[in-house]
Amino acid sequence: MSDTPTHDGPTKGPNRRAFLRGAAATGVGLAATAKATAQDTPDPLITEMQDWASSTGEGVDASPYGMPIQFEGDVVRRNVPWLTADVISSINFTPIHALDGTITPQGCAFERHHSGAIELKKEDYRLMINGLVDRPLVFSYADLERFPRENRTYFLECAANTGMEWAGAQLNGSQFTHGMIHNMEYSGISLRTLLEEAGLDAAGDLADKWVYVEGADASSNGRSIPMEKALDDVLVAFKANGEALRMEHGYPVRLVVPGWEGNMWVKWLRRIEVTDHPIESREETSKYTDTLADGTSRKWTWIMDAKSVVTSPSPQMPITHGKGPLVITGLAWSGRGAISGVDVSIDGGKTWQKARLAKEGEKMALTRFYLDINWDGSEMFLQSRAHDDTGYVQPTKAQLREVRGENSVYHNNCIQTWWVKENGESENVEVSS
Amino acid sequence: MSDTPTHDGPTKGPNRRAFLRGAAATGVGLAATAKATAQDTPDPLITEMQDWASSTGEGVDASPYGMPIQFEGDVVRRNVPWLTADVISSINFTPIHALDGTITPQGCAFERHHSGAIELKKEDYRLMINGLVDRPLVFSYADLERFPRENRTYFLECAANTGMEWAGAQLNGSQFTHGMIHNMEYSGISLRTLLEEAGLDAAGDLADKWVYVEGADASSNGRSIPMEKALDDVLVAFKANGEALRMEHGYPVRLVVPGWEGNMWVKWLRRIEVTDHPIESREETSKYTDTLADGTSRKWTWIMDAKSVVTSPSPQMPITHGKGPLVITGLAWSGRGAISGVDVSIDGGKTWQKARLAKEGEKMALTRFYLDINWDGSEMFLQSRAHDDTGYVQPTKAQLREVRGENSVYHNNCIQTWWVKENGESENVEVSS
Repeated sequence: MSDTPTHDGPTKGPNRRAFLRGAAATGVGLAATAKATAQDTPDPLITEMQDWASSTGEGVDASPYGMPIQFEGDVVRRNVPWLTADVISSINFTPIHALDGTITPQGCAFERHHSGAIELKKEDYRLMINGLVDRPLVFSYADLERFPRENRTYFLECAANTGMEWAGAQLNGSQFTHGMIHNMEYSGISLRTLLEEAGLDAAGDLADKWVYVEGADASSNGRSIPMEKALDDVLVAFKANGEALRMEHGYPVRLVVPGWEGNMWVKWLRRIEVTDHPIESREETSKYTDTLADGTSRKWTWIMDAKSVVTSPSPQMPITHGKGPLVITGLAWSGRGAISGVDVSIDGGKTWQKARLAKEGEKMALTRFYLDINWDGSEMFLQSRAHDDTGYVQPTKAQLREVRGENSVYHNNCIQTWWVKENGESENVEVSS
Repeated sequence: MSDTPTHDGPTKGPNRRAFLRGAAATGVGLAATAKATAQDTPDPLITEMQDWASSTGEGVDASPYGMPIQFEGDVVRRNVPWLTADVISSINFTPIHALDGTITPQGCAFERHHSGAIELKKEDYRLMINGLVDRPLVFSYADLERFPRENRTYFLECAANTGMEWAGAQLNGSQFTHGMIHNMEYSGISLRTLLEEAGLDAAGDLADKWVYVEGADASSNGRSIPMEKALDDVLVAFKANGEALRMEHGYPVRLVVPGWEGNMWVKWLRRIEVTDHPIESREETSKYTDTLADGTSRKWTWIMDAKSVVTSPSPQMPITHGKGPLVITGLAWSGRGAISGVDVSIDGGKTWQKARLAKEGEKMALTRFYLDINWDGSEMFLQSRAHDDTGYVQPTKAQLREVRGENSVYHNNCIQTWWVKENGESENVEVSS
């Protein structure tokens, strides 16, 4: 909301005070307009000429590339300084609390770097395909533009999204608990097309083969992907939401691995090696494995299971209008397929209502849900629960802890609870269930 | 393409020279990489550490709202100074030649103003519904946020798009001939919901009723819409591609009138009056009517008929790699429904090939098409022809002139021709047919 002061961190105190001011301001407006009919004194904002009704005087040349209006300066990506060690291993979060629909604008899409972002010109870009192929090849960017293209909309979720919540409710806002996600329409080339250009006869039986993918940044961020996935729906993408990828998202070329953890979507993609075994790189051994209660770790946990979150109301999006009609909305997604349904509970999971999906769920893409209620003004323990078309149901945090313990960072897809208070503010809490 | 110098106008000379430089540069890269296999001397860009491979050192706090990388500075909206009279009645064009997919990022979405853009705060926003309603109402922005929302993706095309081409091929680039269009995912409220909130019993028989919609800017831009359309699919929208509308697109609230001319998508929406007759405002009498050969005019020509254009190759997107594999791509749309197919001709309409649609056509939304050919290096007269699910076929310019003459500005949906020369450059031309 443009009229709430900027709050740069997830700490609770400052946010609450800021939101109360916002609530008061908006509340007054509502009271006034609720009465405004032809019989009453008309609202001067509708009946009298206002200064703002005349042109800014700036022509269309003022902004060749358009920017958000100044009043929306609060809808930005935010960092949590204590989460990451330094500038080059850093992360910020998508302001999902303030967005609607399903498309994430690139300007709002979170960034995560292991060795910082790099500035790579198209003319300097090269992509090598080597290993068990008939013809090792190096492609320039101009070469890639000559292959048949596909357009697909997919979500990207960092495996560590919601990772701070394992031990207890910690970050106070959906931007911080669930904001390591974005959803864009990608244009690119099927990885299958490029692998077939290099020739896969040399690889023999493909059933037990892998591709090892790495980026041009200092981390290289190498990951092993089973050949079956590589030949299925993986894209070598150069555009997102119609325009070039942003630097922080891997300009000029990144890998798109639908439904799988974001770390595998290698940015600044430089090399694809066909191998007869997984490489067991640092990024898939010391990291991106799930430590269990007994100290052992699960590995190859690539797929992001079905998950959802209420984005409003939420700690950053208080109810400012008191009781009465209230739009509850949020996002749901599954790495295994399409979202088939979302349930919403206002009593901490005791009872559930079926939410309305804005569109039919799309495979491995964000789905927007709404529940329109008449709020009686009493406190709510707000939850959402996603179902996907494989029959999978999003688990509670208790159910997840039974299987996974509390040592994990990655793959926390548990049901989130917002405690919505009578004054309309919300807080990140846990409920026993 | 990031390596071609900026060209701010549609004038032909400068563009051609600029593109030739671009072509030479990229051509070299191609020749080198075509040979690059394990047997040859490897490309140093893939085998040797490069300066650009280390982090920029900027952390995630550097750009809370992300911007395009500097190398993409050429992908911007452009004005054609001589087209419009002054700063407040002005227009710029979407760089459709450089985009892919179907979503238009807000930063690239064209703007058109009749009295300039205005800067209207959410707190100052009011929407009045009056006229033949049971309860005249005034809504604040906070009020609107409490009604059930919908998400829909629609194209917006200015009725004057391609309007400069009636008398002959004039503007040299798809950005300038077809760039008064964008395609976004809108979040908003069904207009039907708000009209029913005000109550329509007072209007009696709705079959012959209209709504008159106007904006808060100095032009007011009033337009009359038949009640049947108003109650069908019109949205009162406040978000596009997930985030708030931009100032130039009507922040905080605009009307979305699917498939109908852009001028009716009233920005800074301030009033909706239910009437028993069309208002015949300036915007629907002296303007937005189609003057025919005999001097009479067609009015109420609201729907944007099926249309398409090849975006690449095109005058701003030359072929830089010589003969061989070539991706031909473009956009198609229809205000009457979904695109059912697109044909592409390389010989000026003598023969046609069926293009590949990136996704199944969606109602009143942009559809991306591709045709992958093996270019023999000879000149082409490149055309695309759209079909929609009503059976309508996009006409040639000759067919359109027979019916409409050459006095029109609006609703030119004729087939466009690009003359692609042996050197890969293209020019806007007409072919006799």
